[in-house]
Amino acid sequence: LARRCHHRAMDLLDVPFLSFCAFLGTLGLLCVAMVGTWCQHWRGGFSLDGSSRTFNWHPVLMVTGLVVLYGAAALVYRVPNTWSGPKLPWKLLHGSLALGAFILTVLGLAAVFSFHNSQGTPNMYSLHSWMGLGTVLLFSCQWAAGFGAFLLPWAPAWLRVIYKPVHVFFGSTILMLSVASCVSGINEKLFFSLKNETTAYKLLPAEAVFANTLGLLILLFGVLVVGALARPSWKRPDSNCPDSRQVWDTLDG
Amino acid sequence: LARRCHHRAMDLLDVPFLSFCAFLGTLGLLCVAMVGTWCQHWRGGFSLDGSSRTFNWHPVLMVTGLVVLYGAAALVYRVPNTWSGPKLPWKLLHGSLALGAFILTVLGLAAVFSFHNSQGTPNMYSLHSWMGLGTVLLFSCQWAAGFGAFLLPWAPAWLRVIYKPVHVFFGSTILMLSVASCVSGINEKLFFSLKNETTAYKLLPAEAVFANTLGLLILLFGVLVVGALARPSWKRPDSNCPDSRQVWDTLDG
Repeated sequence: LARRCHHRAMDLLDVPFLSFCAFLGTLGLLCVAMVGTWCQHWRGGFSLDGSSRTFNWHPVLMVTGLVVLYGAAALVYRVPNTWSGPKLPWKLLHGSLALGAFILTVLGLAAVFSFHNSQGTPNMYSLHSWMGLGTVLLFSCQWAAGFGAFLLPWAPAWLRVIYKPVHVFFGSTILMLSVASCVSGINEKLFFSLKNETTAYKLLPAEAVFANTLGLLILLFGVLVVGALARPSWKRPDSNCPDSRQVWDTLDG
Repeated sequence: LARRCHHRAMDLLDVPFLSFCAFLGTLGLLCVAMVGTWCQHWRGGFSLDGSSRTFNWHPVLMVTGLVVLYGAAALVYRVPNTWSGPKLPWKLLHGSLALGAFILTVLGLAAVFSFHNSQGTPNMYSLHSWMGLGTVLLFSCQWAAGFGAFLLPWAPAWLRVIYKPVHVFFGSTILMLSVASCVSGINEKLFFSLKNETTAYKLLPAEAVFANTLGLLILLFGVLVVGALARPSWKRPDSNCPDSRQVWDTLDG
């Protein structure tokens, strides 16, 4: 009886992974829709003319690429379907989603640099820019090293064994950094934009409430993805040393 | 031979916990020293008169309490000495460090509210303030629930079993949120303060370089603590179900 009560109690915490993914997907789409709405409705929409309408691509591409698509890429190996059968198709999916996220991120950087350059504003002075560019540089190293170690067939097995925990650690770290970059960027953009007497940020106009809420939802998305990645029961059953087992098979067998 | 090479390769990643702690402690002290130096040297120092010198307590207390002392509290159970012998002294240490962090945090909030009120500035409008206050509220729930579930002797064992993974999850989450709050706060403070033509933030004066670097070091501290908490080999050997084992002993024995 005690054992049954205990199991029933623990079941309360045992959210099914696919329901969690449905919720997370909805939350991610909501973040993308909200950042688009913010820029379209309050910040003048989008263009490629170097004005603030060019800047507007920056938040949209960063939230879409470096947070939402990145989060989807990070969670691929938590889908139970990936745990059996050949691993290569899932590796290709993981790498492709990450590459898509990276391309959107680079376009997002291009948007803000092009805006600054056409306005004569210096680049790379704020803490937001240092943190954000650092995050993107880490992401580029992560993608290149992941491609080299896990997708190129001639990478030695011992390299995969060593590098895998490093790749996993930086996978969560980069997402935390990109979420921190997003919220500092939204915060700074609202201070820049909401300056008129009637719509000052400190009077909390509708735009401020909307974009603050967007920032909190991005934080929630990031926390849920990092939490899901860390959750033991959602990891591949062989995740402690899958590649090392492969090493034994290869080298000892 | 292959097996030995593999072990030697994995040893490269196996940082000893106490060396890591020494590095982390140095980094934490450096963050505290730097935030103090920033406020003392560039922002006019400290006072309790409601001026910006009162505000200066806010970053110092938040970095010291909600990041560095909080990080120390979070890592208590990773110290191998805590894995054997009676657990109560370590619980008291963990709870006391967290309480110390919480008290500094509340004083840090009092500093910024007192500054805003004496200047006639509204409170709680920026994303930084929403995120920061949300983090402090989560921290207060975390401390109270931890005290109720783990230190009060009449908490039922099944409650500890259910609540423990929740407490662990929010432990890392609150630190991530507080680090994100710190960097958005430093970013926003630099835009507020560095406005003169000769010392505009965008010209990257010495203060901007110093405080941006502080922000990056706070991020590094947070990432290292969250990473250390997640690292499997640094967890208590019985951490998968220590309390549940206790439940079986109590209920089945």
